[in-house]
Amino acid sequence: MTDLETMKLEFELEKKRRLLSAAAGREPAELVLKNASYVNVFSNELCTCDIAVTDGVIAGLGKYAGREEIDMGGKIVCPGFIDAHIHLESSLVSPSEFVKAVMPNGTVTVITDPHEITNVLGTDGLEYMLQATENLPVDVLFMLPSCVPATALDESGANLNYKAIEPFYGNPRVLGLAEMMNYNGVTEGEEGVLKKITAAQIHRKKVDGHAPGLGGNELNAYIASGVGSDHECSDLGEAVEKLQRGQYIMIREGTAAHNLEALSPLLSGGYADRCMLCTDDKHPSDLLEKGHINYIIKKAISLGASPIRAVMAASFNAAQYFQLNDRGAIAPGYLADFTVIDNFESFKIEKVYKRGKLMYDGEMREFSAPAIEQRLLKRAHNSFRVSPLKEKDFEAQIPLGVIGIVPGEIITTDCGLAEKPDVEKDILKIAIIERHKNTHHIGLGYIRGYGLKQGAVATSISHDSHNVIAVGTSDAELAAAVNTVVDRNGGIVVVRDGEVLGELALPVAGIMSDDTLVNVNRALEHAKARAFELGVSTQIDPFMTLSFMSLPVIPVLRLTTRGIYNVVERKYM
Amino acid sequence: MTDLETMKLEFELEKKRRLLSAAAGREPAELVLKNASYVNVFSNELCTCDIAVTDGVIAGLGKYAGREEIDMGGKIVCPGFIDAHIHLESSLVSPSEFVKAVMPNGTVTVITDPHEITNVLGTDGLEYMLQATENLPVDVLFMLPSCVPATALDESGANLNYKAIEPFYGNPRVLGLAEMMNYNGVTEGEEGVLKKITAAQIHRKKVDGHAPGLGGNELNAYIASGVGSDHECSDLGEAVEKLQRGQYIMIREGTAAHNLEALSPLLSGGYADRCMLCTDDKHPSDLLEKGHINYIIKKAISLGASPIRAVMAASFNAAQYFQLNDRGAIAPGYLADFTVIDNFESFKIEKVYKRGKLMYDGEMREFSAPAIEQRLLKRAHNSFRVSPLKEKDFEAQIPLGVIGIVPGEIITTDCGLAEKPDVEKDILKIAIIERHKNTHHIGLGYIRGYGLKQGAVATSISHDSHNVIAVGTSDAELAAAVNTVVDRNGGIVVVRDGEVLGELALPVAGIMSDDTLVNVNRALEHAKARAFELGVSTQIDPFMTLSFMSLPVIPVLRLTTRGIYNVVERKYM
Repeated sequence: MTDLETMKLEFELEKKRRLLSAAAGREPAELVLKNASYVNVFSNELCTCDIAVTDGVIAGLGKYAGREEIDMGGKIVCPGFIDAHIHLESSLVSPSEFVKAVMPNGTVTVITDPHEITNVLGTDGLEYMLQATENLPVDVLFMLPSCVPATALDESGANLNYKAIEPFYGNPRVLGLAEMMNYNGVTEGEEGVLKKITAAQIHRKKVDGHAPGLGGNELNAYIASGVGSDHECSDLGEAVEKLQRGQYIMIREGTAAHNLEALSPLLSGGYADRCMLCTDDKHPSDLLEKGHINYIIKKAISLGASPIRAVMAASFNAAQYFQLNDRGAIAPGYLADFTVIDNFESFKIEKVYKRGKLMYDGEMREFSAPAIEQRLLKRAHNSFRVSPLKEKDFEAQIPLGVIGIVPGEIITTDCGLAEKPDVEKDILKIAIIERHKNTHHIGLGYIRGYGLKQGAVATSISHDSHNVIAVGTSDAELAAAVNTVVDRNGGIVVVRDGEVLGELALPVAGIMSDDTLVNVNRALEHAKARAFELGVSTQIDPFMTLSFMSLPVIPVLRLTTRGIYNVVERKYM
Repeated sequence: MTDLETMKLEFELEKKRRLLSAAAGREPAELVLKNASYVNVFSNELCTCDIAVTDGVIAGLGKYAGREEIDMGGKIVCPGFIDAHIHLESSLVSPSEFVKAVMPNGTVTVITDPHEITNVLGTDGLEYMLQATENLPVDVLFMLPSCVPATALDESGANLNYKAIEPFYGNPRVLGLAEMMNYNGVTEGEEGVLKKITAAQIHRKKVDGHAPGLGGNELNAYIASGVGSDHECSDLGEAVEKLQRGQYIMIREGTAAHNLEALSPLLSGGYADRCMLCTDDKHPSDLLEKGHINYIIKKAISLGASPIRAVMAASFNAAQYFQLNDRGAIAPGYLADFTVIDNFESFKIEKVYKRGKLMYDGEMREFSAPAIEQRLLKRAHNSFRVSPLKEKDFEAQIPLGVIGIVPGEIITTDCGLAEKPDVEKDILKIAIIERHKNTHHIGLGYIRGYGLKQGAVATSISHDSHNVIAVGTSDAELAAAVNTVVDRNGGIVVVRDGEVLGELALPVAGIMSDDTLVNVNRALEHAKARAFELGVSTQIDPFMTLSFMSLPVIPVLRLTTRGIYNVVERKYM
């Protein structure tokens, strides 16, 4: 045992003595939830008794007196909810702001993959997120990004092999390797990919999956490699095939992907214990309007799931998968993380306790945001390396491919080649500007279906490398929009004639704001309205649509810093 | 990553590449079980397909071709069975011999607590067992003995605090801290006890429980301390109380304790997933006649349990509890540990595979016993420190307590005091001789109900300190019997007039033989017959009865090296 471990032993011993005194009834517990009907995740039923808590841990179930006693008669106490997979950055706000939004929805633990910020800042991004989430009242646990860059076509801010992420496994909040998107690399036995998986296993950590549509023997290979979960199923049969082969399934219901309706039958079947809930991404308005994991539970119940099975998926099952033995259940020795609801029908969140502390009861309790070291703050706020652009940087010398937008989908169509833009016919120029290393790599192409009639729109959120992507009605407008984003060290802008009509500043790595969620949402909605005024089709989200145009894994056409790429034919046009 | 870990990475990588090639079907698997109906532990049902195996690991489920193909049509393939808690020493044979006995019964993994040998040899005993089980075809995994000596009244060969067992947590076959028998010490917050539990937790290891009859808030305290399981329940209500509070329950059906009949309803209830099977101890004849975990499964089915639930308790549930993520299920990436049966009714074990190797198919395959280092061999074979005893060492100066035997039970009654032995009235002298440190501590008393009319019986198996315990019709016979045991470096003897009528040599720490299970059983039965001939009551086991007389935790009277002890009144007579 190291000196540190010996110190920890002494510390834990003292805590344990207090806990056992309360448990055995030798002294009153700090907090007792009296007459609590609670979800017993071990037997899938409601039980009723007192729940005693000391030092943030459940001391006992039974009959107890406490220094503080809260009558829970008529309420239902659930283990606090867990989001099994989210990219926190998608909320566009700091983790502290995110916590303020999700805790009133009953969330007490999230497992995040800081894939976005790591694509910008490399392991500094990972470190930034670890520091930004330290000791928050929602436990933020990590899976290490497995695919930075996402593909070989990407020009991201970093290129991480297994050795680069290696030191982070020592952090107790790191649970494993995040979604292994390169499933072909796995099944084909690519060395770099297998090294990442094997290293995670050597550290006895989990490996999350991401393999939409994978089945048959390829799926066997993917799972045999050590990938333990999947959150990409949109089809019941696909999910069952993965479950049968031993994967856990994360039922995803977030802002971009909605799989609950297809997958909710799982919560009533033989595999119910092997399912958890996740959001993958939650944008500001979605967080504010719908809620978080509570929204998924409620919807699952409305789709016919047993309420207890749904709550288990949102708590115990995720804890089991991640081997978080201290949470997800209400029993002695578990963390006193409770989400108290009125009943399973209206499912109103009345109180949320984290480690025995009341954090929400209609109002969110104050907490302090963790300090982030200066070096990282500076690095995150200065992530752009792009020299000012001029009109002629956007000039097209040859005919370019035309990406067709499909409203409501992230797939695109191949609309052939165009000689030049034509605003009247809705053929607009789209550009992506490498922004991490000042390479002056600029990818150009055309896009149809965006609808813009004046000005330009630009954003530094573009998956997964987060270069600057822009659509404009002229090269001058494009240059102005992109330069504005770079000037601001990141953000979303709507410009016309050199005037910024709407904007959301995203100064943290170009993908997150320093402002509150409400303000971010307001600025975003304002910018969106301006974009619509300039003609953007109201059938699409002006910014999210752009942010997916750079993801060279979704058919058919995408724009990379090297030009228009045909994903199906695997070649540049 | 350490150099060792980097080497491991390279090694695992190579294996993984081969596995994925077989899984994806790029090359034939080493072994394919064709048309296998297998127990799908994730959904509690039988599924049918091919099971492909390479390098001892399951590559895939589906349709496969293999270099070797075995048709499994009409058979049922189960995940290999796991005994969740056993003291291997109770079989009286070496671990290799034990393996030969249990593997034909479908057992592929046992979790052992080497409590007996450790009470004799201290951590050398632990090390001995680790070496004696290395690379056996049954995986022998360890829980570190938590209570050496078992009580403060014991004079054992070692006294181990948390620091003494600490280095063993680094061994990957060590899963945690074994049954914490001192439950009063836990609930009362005794420092040494809590340190042991906390140290295990710091190493992220499991802590097994042992708390017969514990309930209410004392139970809450015991569980809150971190004790995750119990194998001492003999009552359904007691088991449910423990399950509700989060413990896993090991349903025990061994040689001494039979809890299955009382607990089998658990396998049909809401807590079924939280139950596993264990034997605790298995004596030679019991192993040979009844079998092992397969016997418990079969009996559970006959008592009404669903066969699949029973098989899950015997495999997946135990793996889940111990966080053995590589076994207990049939799915890609899991160890190819299979127990093939004819059907759930006759439950005949037809084939047993360990890591893809056929180990049993009516006949047990050869394997080599691991080498044990000389120092340990010598130490284990020379564990007696007792100067030769004389008749007068057994003389009683004052009246002594009389222990009353209750046939078929291990409890005893208090039969008051006696002035002297009286063979006619079945008042015999019983003696226990400290044998680890040559202290010449000899505890004397009387026993009623044993029945011996001539000679003496002595054994060096006496729980849990394994001093030499003897009953004789005269002090001279006692001295002869004890001296014989010491001469042999351990064993069980039946003597008369200085002649050894029957004996089982137990030269390994005085508790295990170097011979085969069949020979051990034969010698034991022979000795038993001689004991009965000398008058020992046929209602009792002549040796097992004696071996429990020294366990000062079971009411009412016990014999320690300091004399007769009243367990209920907690004092010497």
